[in-house]
Amino acid sequence: MTQGLLAPLGFRFSATSAKLRKDGRVDLGLAVADAPATVAALYTKNVVKAAPVLISAARTQDGFAQAILANCGCANACTGEEGVVAARSTTRSVAEALGIDEALVLPASTGVIGTPLPKDKILAAVPELVTRLSAEAHEDFAQAICTTDRWKKVAGCALGSRSRLLGIAKGAGMIHPELGYFAPEPSTGLHATMLAFLFTDAVVSQEILKRALEAAVEESFNAASVDGDTSTNDTVVVMASGKSGEEVGQAELTRALTVVCTELAESMVRDGEGSEHLAELLVSGLGSDAEARQVAKTVATSLLVKTAMAGKDPNWGRWLGAAGRAGVVFEPSQVELRIEGITLVRGGMGVPGLDEAKVKVAMMQPRYRVELVLGQGPGHARYFMTDLGHAYVNVNADYRS
Amino acid sequence: MTQGLLAPLGFRFSATSAKLRKDGRVDLGLAVADAPATVAALYTKNVVKAAPVLISAARTQDGFAQAILANCGCANACTGEEGVVAARSTTRSVAEALGIDEALVLPASTGVIGTPLPKDKILAAVPELVTRLSAEAHEDFAQAICTTDRWKKVAGCALGSRSRLLGIAKGAGMIHPELGYFAPEPSTGLHATMLAFLFTDAVVSQEILKRALEAAVEESFNAASVDGDTSTNDTVVVMASGKSGEEVGQAELTRALTVVCTELAESMVRDGEGSEHLAELLVSGLGSDAEARQVAKTVATSLLVKTAMAGKDPNWGRWLGAAGRAGVVFEPSQVELRIEGITLVRGGMGVPGLDEAKVKVAMMQPRYRVELVLGQGPGHARYFMTDLGHAYVNVNADYRS
Repeated sequence: MTQGLLAPLGFRFSATSAKLRKDGRVDLGLAVADAPATVAALYTKNVVKAAPVLISAARTQDGFAQAILANCGCANACTGEEGVVAARSTTRSVAEALGIDEALVLPASTGVIGTPLPKDKILAAVPELVTRLSAEAHEDFAQAICTTDRWKKVAGCALGSRSRLLGIAKGAGMIHPELGYFAPEPSTGLHATMLAFLFTDAVVSQEILKRALEAAVEESFNAASVDGDTSTNDTVVVMASGKSGEEVGQAELTRALTVVCTELAESMVRDGEGSEHLAELLVSGLGSDAEARQVAKTVATSLLVKTAMAGKDPNWGRWLGAAGRAGVVFEPSQVELRIEGITLVRGGMGVPGLDEAKVKVAMMQPRYRVELVLGQGPGHARYFMTDLGHAYVNVNADYRS
Repeated sequence: MTQGLLAPLGFRFSATSAKLRKDGRVDLGLAVADAPATVAALYTKNVVKAAPVLISAARTQDGFAQAILANCGCANACTGEEGVVAARSTTRSVAEALGIDEALVLPASTGVIGTPLPKDKILAAVPELVTRLSAEAHEDFAQAICTTDRWKKVAGCALGSRSRLLGIAKGAGMIHPELGYFAPEPSTGLHATMLAFLFTDAVVSQEILKRALEAAVEESFNAASVDGDTSTNDTVVVMASGKSGEEVGQAELTRALTVVCTELAESMVRDGEGSEHLAELLVSGLGSDAEARQVAKTVATSLLVKTAMAGKDPNWGRWLGAAGRAGVVFEPSQVELRIEGITLVRGGMGVPGLDEAKVKVAMMQPRYRVELVLGQGPGHARYFMTDLGHAYVNVNADYRS
């Protein structure tokens, strides 16, 4: 990821070890705005929602927030009313130390489901967290939310002429986000334990922030999958401090958020538990973008496609078979499939004399492009997916031990 | 599987090696009724349908068939018009050798997608296939359709007072059938390369045969998953010769078909590529059976659940997380989860003092039961699922080599 990024004006960060992790690494992070910031947030649509999601969703509804308290080591999910009480006590402690309203502090957690939040450890670490706050510590904050991540995920870009956007995320497993504004109805989508926090110093209205975030997430986190599994804790929050004094419009903000969120999403997928390859899957030629997205998701979560990727096996029938079961109508005789520009399928059939060795070489790359053309329609979608090999099984067959 | 089953009256079987497989094992099978039999059939709803599916679907629409020609080693899928012509030529050859109408011969294929059907090899083997036909060779036929199967799949039961039902199937990977009567519209379901052929000597009307098959498949093949992937070739055919002279009703026939299809489906899942454990998943307490089925499917195809099974890891949060993303509303605080009768979750939270070692022992068994209770409603479903460990990756990361 980009190194040496400056944080936007008006935010401070810190991290410490609250001993939530056995290895003593930093595991608790705090991000604070100098004053209440404009906020928009998207949360997991999983019916089973973690306590911090329930609390943060309620607290971001009025469009303002000032601090984010994030921990790894415990998801605080399936912990009942006690979990909510525990999370509230930690945010109350932060609010008191900062001298702000508790309702402005958003909790976020990631880790194992079903164990009680070690709130006493967190409460004991809050004074140090607050003391350590600095405008330069955003990379420490990024480190504090990592779980099985192999690297911390930070991305940023310029916004307007003198504003900045910074994004910090974590996620490597349970990655298939399909975030939405908090609503009681369930989604049929898949999700992941991913946390992403975005900070800008631009002046932005709540409505524009909300719309821009939704659009950016749709093209990035919601178009990325490691394992097709949805977390109880997925959270994306964007805070705007307004400290640059520069007002930005919706198009400009959407573009910047999409760039940063896409970089973070791609980093998550590249870091996908045990994965060795990232495929940028481009599905096109369908009647609508929604249909293309549906096919892309189905292909991206197909075990047979993912294991063929792990084996560098140009077994294109698996890609077509997965596309065909997505619930979207297309004419099989029009299908084309290309990997890194090499055409494997044309007119729904294998290309005669295909140089499979050349395809295998393309599939050995850590990142390659797969194009699936399913007709002549305008609908298209981009999706980030990974392979599934032995390393994935190593990480997941006994995650807790 | 049950050994020494007698075939129903009025059918003969044979098998031979047409050298479609490199190892010289039998790879081509023929089943023939003495006269045109009443038939019902269900096929994959995958948009990408193999040539034999297109042909057989057309030929079973009138409710009569007399022979099934099935091969492994080549799926004859994504082979275009040439694939259809090739499959027709093989059934024409069988029809001529038997002296029957070609439209009464159903082709079925399983194997790699995208390679042309070696029709000359099949044509050369037809005379021997016809010569070898016998009422006792149904197990040879069962062997001829095996691909990655570790054992052949045959099951049977009595029907009425003097009729019989025999089922023969294959399937170990690309197993997540959701078969339906042939229709142009796609399904959002998942499928598998599974072939199942059922034979009875009872007297059955076309309408009863059709309804009974649909009901039986819904509870068996359509409630089983190995890898969540859908084949281009899935086919289930039932033929009734009427040779026992005994008429059976819909309830009786549905019961028998459900027993045999469930035994075959469970055998497929137990034989799931690289799988070591079969879980019988029982989801209950929802508003409808359809909702329970939806949750069961989502849990059964969750990578995190399947890898936890492989690791014998009682990480129950993964089961709840998967249930929560199924798109079905339930109250998390009412959830219960039991494995082999041991309660892991009650009231949506982990049971205090759970003896995890005891759960691990239960999860070491080749077959165990998982009960997921999601409320007080009447909706319930049963589903057969497998674990996903290193052996699955071994089989699938380079299937063709």
